[in-house]
Amino acid sequence: MIQKLIANIRKTNAPVVVGLDPMMGFIPEHITKKAFAEFGETLEGAAEAVWQYNKAIVDEIYDLIPAVKPQIAMYEQFGIPGLMAFKKTVDYCKEKGLVVIGDVKRGDIGSTSAAYATAHLGKVKVGSQLLTPFGEDFATVNPYLGTDGIKPFIDVCKEEKKGLFILVKTSNPSSGEFQDRTVDGRPLYELVGEKVAQWADSCMGEEYSYVGAVVGATYPEMGKVLRKVMPKSFILVPGYGAQGGKASDLVHYFNEDGLGAIVNSSRGIIAAYKQEKYAAFGAENFAGASRQAVIDMIEDINGALQAR
Amino acid sequence: MIQKLIANIRKTNAPVVVGLDPMMGFIPEHITKKAFAEFGETLEGAAEAVWQYNKAIVDEIYDLIPAVKPQIAMYEQFGIPGLMAFKKTVDYCKEKGLVVIGDVKRGDIGSTSAAYATAHLGKVKVGSQLLTPFGEDFATVNPYLGTDGIKPFIDVCKEEKKGLFILVKTSNPSSGEFQDRTVDGRPLYELVGEKVAQWADSCMGEEYSYVGAVVGATYPEMGKVLRKVMPKSFILVPGYGAQGGKASDLVHYFNEDGLGAIVNSSRGIIAAYKQEKYAAFGAENFAGASRQAVIDMIEDINGALQAR
Repeated sequence: MIQKLIANIRKTNAPVVVGLDPMMGFIPEHITKKAFAEFGETLEGAAEAVWQYNKAIVDEIYDLIPAVKPQIAMYEQFGIPGLMAFKKTVDYCKEKGLVVIGDVKRGDIGSTSAAYATAHLGKVKVGSQLLTPFGEDFATVNPYLGTDGIKPFIDVCKEEKKGLFILVKTSNPSSGEFQDRTVDGRPLYELVGEKVAQWADSCMGEEYSYVGAVVGATYPEMGKVLRKVMPKSFILVPGYGAQGGKASDLVHYFNEDGLGAIVNSSRGIIAAYKQEKYAAFGAENFAGASRQAVIDMIEDINGALQAR
Repeated sequence: MIQKLIANIRKTNAPVVVGLDPMMGFIPEHITKKAFAEFGETLEGAAEAVWQYNKAIVDEIYDLIPAVKPQIAMYEQFGIPGLMAFKKTVDYCKEKGLVVIGDVKRGDIGSTSAAYATAHLGKVKVGSQLLTPFGEDFATVNPYLGTDGIKPFIDVCKEEKKGLFILVKTSNPSSGEFQDRTVDGRPLYELVGEKVAQWADSCMGEEYSYVGAVVGATYPEMGKVLRKVMPKSFILVPGYGAQGGKASDLVHYFNEDGLGAIVNSSRGIIAAYKQEKYAAFGAENFAGASRQAVIDMIEDINGALQAR
């Protein structure tokens, strides 16, 4: 799947990923009204609104981008119907040729990690059948439990040619509380990065590994170091735009070949119509605003890459 | 909810929790056969088998124990139908008066952590309605992202009187890879434990906090230290039995009041009929074997507590 991600990035010339993290406050009233009219003010109604919102955005932007990253928490909060909307979104994006990164940040040990890996990247055995539970292409994973927690995910990746992005340095203000603490003279995130590099070596595609890392756009100096620590790993970069990360800060997350990173924007794209810059599109044409925001983001990042 | 947990522990005189972590290999053939006959070898069939298996065990043991801990990964691997079985299990256990600890190990930042907290412990606003997505009483949470990741969970706990168990030192062999690394002369898990103690202070019930911790039974010396670091937190202790933790090792996880810890066993209880010790029950009476295993576990732990 890392090969498909690279092929999609080359085809679109866009090292970006759009986060499909629908919050109720983002969804225009004409969509929620229609969904509530059909399903009531229920979890089903909310899930229908989420799905219609996602579908309209994906229809408008799928030709511009290589990948999407649905954040499962935003669906899980609407219970079972919400998770059905997640699954529908995953399936629809795959139909459209997009690589789907399930932002699930799962992580446990042994058979439990294996169950999560099966749920999101693998197939589950039921009697004589092999069935696909959620079927994303990549999943994000939390490393706090160590190799026991990661190994079962890598096993499934090898079998299914799927991929991982392991949390190394997250984009939030308090990520340093534990991640930046000094261990043997180096910050913990570097130690985690070294482990990611080892795991990555064990699971290579052609130029890049199936095992990537998450490094926030908000810490560009650390990104520069981590790029070198994990040379064969793609870096998924959250924190661009709304969280404050700038394109000029992100060039060091890429390798010389112009690959090696994929920059995420979520609300900056899906709720673009709420920004002054795109307000002219109006709530009715929210998806048109998202398309323009994607075009602007790609130009911003490619411009910075060309200028380096 | 910490008050209900304490009341339940006092009523049953059993500081234990049973992990409802159904793997297909645990479920007796007569149950899977019946489920597959009705629903086919499908995700629905697997979910039905899981639910019938859980229900039979809960019916047999609910009067003996204060709480259950369903591991959501084991349900998530069967996709949407699996998660419906999770929800049914949560609801049924609550009906039976049990405290339900959702072993979900979620953790993200800001609005995403808030969405997870809503999904598992809170209520979600849909139009004018407040609806309950999954409705567990406690959730397990991963601390790698720092306070930004934990705070939204604590906010929901305060509002809903729900609780957390934050991963501090996990029971698996490689948990030390990051958790044991020395930071300012102390292991990282101690630093995380200190943070848990601070978070716990901000969210007190009567004697104990709504914010607890996970410390594996397999590291009793560390448990002894962490007990003192987090005096007001309940410790959820995995790793008893199957993973090697012994009752005599666990006494230091408890405070002088006999409270402060709750020891989990999963496969040791739910798959007891597969052990030589309980084989006489047979696969047909698997739930009877589970009941006897619970009785033995309570006796083992209470014996060790009395002997200290």
